[in-house]
Amino acid sequence: MAERTMSVQRLEQIRQTIRRELDRTVDFWLKHSHDTEHGGFFTCLSRDGQVYDQLKYVWLQGRQVWMYCRLYQTVPRFHRDDILQAAKAGGVFLRKHARRTIFSECFYILALDELSRVTDDKHMQVEAEQMMEQLVHWVQKDPSGLGRPQLPGDTPSSSMAVPMMLLCLVQQLSEGRGPQAALKYQSVGQWCVEQIVQHVQRKGTAVLENVSADGAELQGCAGRLQNPGHALEAGWFLLQYSSQWDLQDLQDTAISRFIEGPFQSGWDQEHGGLFYFLDVDGHCPTQLEWSMKLWWPHCEALVALLMAYTQTQRPELLERFTQVYDYTFKHFPDAQSGEWFGYLTQEGKVALDFKGGPFKGFFHVPRCLLMCENMLDQILLQD
Amino acid sequence: MAERTMSVQRLEQIRQTIRRELDRTVDFWLKHSHDTEHGGFFTCLSRDGQVYDQLKYVWLQGRQVWMYCRLYQTVPRFHRDDILQAAKAGGVFLRKHARRTIFSECFYILALDELSRVTDDKHMQVEAEQMMEQLVHWVQKDPSGLGRPQLPGDTPSSSMAVPMMLLCLVQQLSEGRGPQAALKYQSVGQWCVEQIVQHVQRKGTAVLENVSADGAELQGCAGRLQNPGHALEAGWFLLQYSSQWDLQDLQDTAISRFIEGPFQSGWDQEHGGLFYFLDVDGHCPTQLEWSMKLWWPHCEALVALLMAYTQTQRPELLERFTQVYDYTFKHFPDAQSGEWFGYLTQEGKVALDFKGGPFKGFFHVPRCLLMCENMLDQILLQD
Repeated sequence: MAERTMSVQRLEQIRQTIRRELDRTVDFWLKHSHDTEHGGFFTCLSRDGQVYDQLKYVWLQGRQVWMYCRLYQTVPRFHRDDILQAAKAGGVFLRKHARRTIFSECFYILALDELSRVTDDKHMQVEAEQMMEQLVHWVQKDPSGLGRPQLPGDTPSSSMAVPMMLLCLVQQLSEGRGPQAALKYQSVGQWCVEQIVQHVQRKGTAVLENVSADGAELQGCAGRLQNPGHALEAGWFLLQYSSQWDLQDLQDTAISRFIEGPFQSGWDQEHGGLFYFLDVDGHCPTQLEWSMKLWWPHCEALVALLMAYTQTQRPELLERFTQVYDYTFKHFPDAQSGEWFGYLTQEGKVALDFKGGPFKGFFHVPRCLLMCENMLDQILLQD
Repeated sequence: MAERTMSVQRLEQIRQTIRRELDRTVDFWLKHSHDTEHGGFFTCLSRDGQVYDQLKYVWLQGRQVWMYCRLYQTVPRFHRDDILQAAKAGGVFLRKHARRTIFSECFYILALDELSRVTDDKHMQVEAEQMMEQLVHWVQKDPSGLGRPQLPGDTPSSSMAVPMMLLCLVQQLSEGRGPQAALKYQSVGQWCVEQIVQHVQRKGTAVLENVSADGAELQGCAGRLQNPGHALEAGWFLLQYSSQWDLQDLQDTAISRFIEGPFQSGWDQEHGGLFYFLDVDGHCPTQLEWSMKLWWPHCEALVALLMAYTQTQRPELLERFTQVYDYTFKHFPDAQSGEWFGYLTQEGKVALDFKGGPFKGFFHVPRCLLMCENMLDQILLQD
């Protein structure tokens, strides 16, 4: 590893910080988010962990179950009975109350499958797989079952979120289950990859959030919209897939188009951090929050850049990783109450100080920390 | 007017500035927003007036037709053929293409009625009135016609926007049409006022955006949400109504509960300007844009405070008016290209630099400027 300019010491420091943050994050949610009376998880938690709204967003329930299971199963220090019991209780709540929208459905599957691995409940695994078949049918053939009818006059468009979500589920359902499971989902996975890659536009220089059903650029703001964090997340999904099937071209595409490109155009040169939305032609986006710095794009960037480095050993990818790391760990963690702030102004000031809310639950922060910790273990082991 | 501490000179200056701004605003939209090829108005206009998206939001079409008509009919210097023709062309476009959602419907009625006044088209007036009947039916009896089904499990709640919109239409349809028209809409108007006043909660100290169907506070963030600009707008709607029917109690309620209260709690003591959203218990709102300073709440505040002063001659209301005036005219108008910026950060920096967008059209700025100019004329005349 002679090329790497980063010292082992620095990486070791980073790993320790990440490890400590993961512990604090898990503690925060274990302590504050459990509804011991009605089951399920509160997700609207104030800075110090108080519940400021009892609403339970289904998709965040599913994510939290999944995250607990993943931690329980893969990290020895989290192989604790309280975490397992919390995940199981969340699963009960979910199966009893969840209703159907595509993203809730996706996180339901994610949760159920991971829970079936922890509990060794084959019936649950079958349920997750059946639901996946239904979901694939909805997405590829007949969206009417999802209750989101196409409005007359609307241009049929394809959002990157749908194939990304499906690809994530393909990964989940086939992971560690041998070649047969992998083959079972191969064609869906292939479809997802093709759909995602369609979002590379402008001769490869931009990833656009929405394209037409046949992969052309759409008119107007919606067509020009860029979401750097989302592109980076797609990037590491594609990296995982390319590694599983040994697809060199896809790895190149993932790194150059979905990771390096969006990172470069999405980074705020003036104040640091990743913008939430951009317009590919440089117009002002119409989303009021476009210039804010959100926690999750930074999580995705950390995972994407470290994974790209792990797969290629290209030192500049590690440099980018530490650039994001420095910004992220300077601005997002709350030294006072633990966990991360979610929403900063463009200048990096905390704009909303809660820890959980309609879109922020126990998911992106611990997933990112867990994956980065594992990748750093691997990198440092090789040294 | 001995009590007034404001000099006539100062008010005269303000009036001149407002008048000039109104002229510049009308010029801006006349010049940049007309689609001469397909009819209708572009509303996504960049800072210098370029069309950055050709999407035509129906509700903004209706508002622009209404605004042109209102200017044409009530302001001698805008009694110009180009304005009339633009309004008529907008009406043709609207009748040909508009689709049904409650707010689009409302601005459709607003546009059609005002256009019928300008063109003396009785048939158009009848159409507006029939649509109003349909709308009242939807709002009060059967919302299924609006295509927005109540989801099972949702708490039935009452948003202030619906009765406000209806009250605005009652005002529009009965204005200047004599006692019979006023009586025709009296019971609907009364219903709207009752619905709006239900939003005064916490022993009169707060106006909450959403309450239960029977006027109780709702749980959670949605129940605690405050929108100072919206409360101020409701305030001047109620002032108009109280003045028309000579309701002293309602005038008092409008001023103390809907104008003075929300102004005081909504004003940013540190940076000036009105917050977009607040949580009545002081939690951080979950809307990412909560602390931003938007143009329209400032428009509503200017109208509400000046109208409250006009009706009561209480000097402190004029003081508040000039406080908002100073902030507004310092931060929102664009000296370079005309018209106003719509979205500032909490600190007052321009965050989105376009002049028109999905929610900003030819409506709040000119309506506010027109009404303020008229009220100042009236005040200065009395001196």
